[in-house]
Amino acid sequence: MNKFIRVDMTTLKVTTEKVPEKYVGLGGRALTSNFVNDEVKPTCHALGKNNKLIFAPGLLSGTTAPNSGRISVGAKSPLTGTIKESNAGGSFSQKMAKMGIKALVVEGIPADDKFYVIKIDGKRVTIDEAPAEILGGCGNYKAIEVLSGKYGEKVGIALAGPAGEYRLPSANISFKDPEGNIRSAGRGGLGAVMGSKKIKAIVIDDTGAGAVPIAEPEKFRAASKVFAKVILDHPVAGQGLAAFGTNVLVNIMNEAGGLPSKNFTTGRIDWNDNISGETVNATIKERGGDGKVSHGCHAGCVIRCSQWYPDKQGKYITSGFEYETIWGLGADAGIKDLDEIAYIDREMDDIGVDSIETAVAVAAAMEGGLLPWGDGKAVLDAVKQIAVPTPLGRLLGSGTEAIGKACGLFRVPVVKGQSIPAYDPRNVKGIGLTYATTPMGADHTAGYCIANNILSLGGFIDPLKKEGQVDISRFLQIGTASIDSTGCCLFIWFALADSPEGIQALVDMINAQYGLSLSVEEAVVELGKSVLKVERAFNKAAGFTNAHDRLPEFFEYEPCAPHNLVWDFTPEEIDEVYNFEGEEALNS
Amino acid sequence: MNKFIRVDMTTLKVTTEKVPEKYVGLGGRALTSNFVNDEVKPTCHALGKNNKLIFAPGLLSGTTAPNSGRISVGAKSPLTGTIKESNAGGSFSQKMAKMGIKALVVEGIPADDKFYVIKIDGKRVTIDEAPAEILGGCGNYKAIEVLSGKYGEKVGIALAGPAGEYRLPSANISFKDPEGNIRSAGRGGLGAVMGSKKIKAIVIDDTGAGAVPIAEPEKFRAASKVFAKVILDHPVAGQGLAAFGTNVLVNIMNEAGGLPSKNFTTGRIDWNDNISGETVNATIKERGGDGKVSHGCHAGCVIRCSQWYPDKQGKYITSGFEYETIWGLGADAGIKDLDEIAYIDREMDDIGVDSIETAVAVAAAMEGGLLPWGDGKAVLDAVKQIAVPTPLGRLLGSGTEAIGKACGLFRVPVVKGQSIPAYDPRNVKGIGLTYATTPMGADHTAGYCIANNILSLGGFIDPLKKEGQVDISRFLQIGTASIDSTGCCLFIWFALADSPEGIQALVDMINAQYGLSLSVEEAVVELGKSVLKVERAFNKAAGFTNAHDRLPEFFEYEPCAPHNLVWDFTPEEIDEVYNFEGEEALNS
Repeated sequence: MNKFIRVDMTTLKVTTEKVPEKYVGLGGRALTSNFVNDEVKPTCHALGKNNKLIFAPGLLSGTTAPNSGRISVGAKSPLTGTIKESNAGGSFSQKMAKMGIKALVVEGIPADDKFYVIKIDGKRVTIDEAPAEILGGCGNYKAIEVLSGKYGEKVGIALAGPAGEYRLPSANISFKDPEGNIRSAGRGGLGAVMGSKKIKAIVIDDTGAGAVPIAEPEKFRAASKVFAKVILDHPVAGQGLAAFGTNVLVNIMNEAGGLPSKNFTTGRIDWNDNISGETVNATIKERGGDGKVSHGCHAGCVIRCSQWYPDKQGKYITSGFEYETIWGLGADAGIKDLDEIAYIDREMDDIGVDSIETAVAVAAAMEGGLLPWGDGKAVLDAVKQIAVPTPLGRLLGSGTEAIGKACGLFRVPVVKGQSIPAYDPRNVKGIGLTYATTPMGADHTAGYCIANNILSLGGFIDPLKKEGQVDISRFLQIGTASIDSTGCCLFIWFALADSPEGIQALVDMINAQYGLSLSVEEAVVELGKSVLKVERAFNKAAGFTNAHDRLPEFFEYEPCAPHNLVWDFTPEEIDEVYNFEGEEALNS
Repeated sequence: MNKFIRVDMTTLKVTTEKVPEKYVGLGGRALTSNFVNDEVKPTCHALGKNNKLIFAPGLLSGTTAPNSGRISVGAKSPLTGTIKESNAGGSFSQKMAKMGIKALVVEGIPADDKFYVIKIDGKRVTIDEAPAEILGGCGNYKAIEVLSGKYGEKVGIALAGPAGEYRLPSANISFKDPEGNIRSAGRGGLGAVMGSKKIKAIVIDDTGAGAVPIAEPEKFRAASKVFAKVILDHPVAGQGLAAFGTNVLVNIMNEAGGLPSKNFTTGRIDWNDNISGETVNATIKERGGDGKVSHGCHAGCVIRCSQWYPDKQGKYITSGFEYETIWGLGADAGIKDLDEIAYIDREMDDIGVDSIETAVAVAAAMEGGLLPWGDGKAVLDAVKQIAVPTPLGRLLGSGTEAIGKACGLFRVPVVKGQSIPAYDPRNVKGIGLTYATTPMGADHTAGYCIANNILSLGGFIDPLKKEGQVDISRFLQIGTASIDSTGCCLFIWFALADSPEGIQALVDMINAQYGLSLSVEEAVVELGKSVLKVERAFNKAAGFTNAHDRLPEFFEYEPCAPHNLVWDFTPEEIDEVYNFEGEEALNS
């Protein structure tokens, strides 16, 4: 990966440069975050001409390393105002890597009001006017069909859906997956940045590209084999996720009393069977047809947590039917019918909005009287309005914080403007520290303490107590920043948490690919810390302080059933998360 | 003023205490800001139970000092997240002062969903359930009628309109004026704080109250006479404002090229005659009937800048028909018909929303395609929807920043979440520094550099150049913080700017009332600085940094006609505003 492509949308000019020296060793999130911190003015308007959008494959993307096909996207977030990295599956990352493209950077804003398609192939980068039929509310499923028809069935596609076109803060970037379905870089409104730059889609055609060069192929193969075995042998990563998908967590979190329900007013429901992973699995099997209980979001995935959920006639409704989406529309918004949830999930993918942000916003809108509690039909109708967009659609597409303002709520579950996902921080305390302190705004994937608190992976830490949580949130945030830089799916962590051998194999693959001899300390710990430091530096310059590393106040005085705990970390304790031992404190 | 009344809405209990020693010498904004900084947790949710709402008369309120009848209201703002003081005319301040009430503090939130009326008279404070007929969208004009009917025609009233009931971020607090019309503590959403505490209205009956005690009546009378003469003799304060109202500024600002138009895309219009002060004046005279070209918003006002604007039949439409409102709906939103603007102004008063926030939001909504440019009928209909509230009404009532998010705009004229008013900072540079740095969010009244930049009062400073602007914004912000603490209308500044004698008379009145011997340095400069320091301290603890003391980025790269200037102060230059000479820098 020796190319750095810049597309200037102000002049509609493309330049290809050699990868700047300082970025050579970086990939994925490490690259996007360093780049954004280097080139984007922290106080710029996220939708203005001075924001930049960067797409970067991970260090291992395009190789045969299992689960390494995720694409990182970075920019200043219009939702949070922080630096943002969001990653997704699909084929985009692997195609970029195979074509030797380390990063694609989009800058500027066109003077006219047209939307464009950026087309990248082995010979050139072109900027075409977007076909009219995919603009103005056209869903992503159809847009992928049209673009695949025009540019070839095998191309990779990154897409701003209707929400991105309208530059709504919850707009995601949708990626075509191997079957032509949708995988999303969901969080932080990066689709709105893409829309602000008038890019409807980026199409990548790797026809003719060779394999990613590997410095030491033998070593790579050996390490890759160990890595795959560690994952496949693991009860969660290798078996549990394939059997029930991420939605296996509904029953687990409900049992733990950490399933936030009815806009975060309780931690347990008694109708969990309606929406559990077991029920999803049984339904898919029973209905047959297009249904799949296990499927990968990108080529080379061995975890295969994704599922295809069909309707009663067996016809595909949606895939990537994740726990957090089902939790949000189910437990949090009270929709008890799985089919209704599936159709809303499909609609969110089709419009291109983050399903976490939107589901949490829906629940808040219910508390605010904008929507009736638990009414799946009303929600489907409201979500469809995002594509029009009506005032209700615009409001919903603005995210939970906006709903909170428009409805005058104090119970607004966001950190740094981004919705808190599917794990209640009062009854699962470790994850609360991650929500509060990650530079990304509330994000469970930034340091998934559920591993230790609930799944007993990497050492059990009692979710109801404060002891040990600061250390584990810090440790996981560092590790995650590294994994997000490799192109690997975060779920490899489930296996790696208890396997030094697996971590070593990951580093061995990087060393073998690039001809390096990095230690685990260097490739994982030091890299992770450096990424977090860069992200915190950007946020600090954008005006964020430790006062923003706090959960919403209601968690401090509204106890959460069934454990009836409140969020009781002091500001000083929270700030310890970013006090890297033996190092200058990040939050100094 | 020796009483401090606290109403706890959680328990519905009232306590009256002696004024805490530290607050004895403070009034108005000095008192509200010190109190909020002392008792409100900076990171609390503004609509949660830990925010507190304080009403405080100024130091001179209730006396015969000219123009001293303004009431200050303070809290953490749901619009900006900063500390907030907003003040208004009406009779509330004078009645509180005469009854010896230094401050009324409202705390907590009721457990039930009822709205209440707090009634204060000489014997007791009671908390009644609010009459059903004034709830759920009832306009302020009718609510004042109902409450006056129930509690007596002469009572003072503070009111949360429909917008306040719904806790919308642009909700103001409306005060009954001597004629039963409406004066507003407009900015920062304090009506939403009142609504969050389930207070529909506060009624004050000063029957039986004596005069405010004056330590040295002779000295007071003498100083008051000098003070009145200085104001009345001044061409702007004594004559211009009475003749044409604040709206005299339409032609002046248009001529100066600093009239922000079409959502801040230009600084001059060619249809200024449609909406000028001269036209308002001529229309009022021509229509007769209820029309008044000059009128005071509170008893004892000698400036009398308010006007009553009647319809074609001479029937009252609205009063307090201010320049900023007419500018916002007129120049900024393109509505060319004064009657349409007047009906929208009436509606905003009736619903209880800040007319600046709402007008600027309307213009942004037009740019965003939510409303048609310049269509007064569509705007009136949209504003009425705030009282329902429909999704569009909720969105509009959420303010300009929310509209910017929902419409994906980068041209969003706000600082710290509050709309920039009627003076373009590119072509009138001094006021830009005030917008950027005042602890209140964009607010022209916090340091009205238009005095020096445009009106040549207090020494002319060229509006198109940077020279001298930092010093004048700092000086005016300090002076304003003091004047806001006296209960005096800010417009006295026009006269005082060129009159050391007038400033001395103001301090002499305070000394005579309280038996003190403060110097001008102590009573104006030191007090003003101390208020600003307290406000900055609160904001800092709430998470604000110098990075928030910035104008929106588009001002830096979109030149403003006719002078085609951009906003070109560097961050370092801006930060000098709060570098108080000879003192520890406020922004350290």
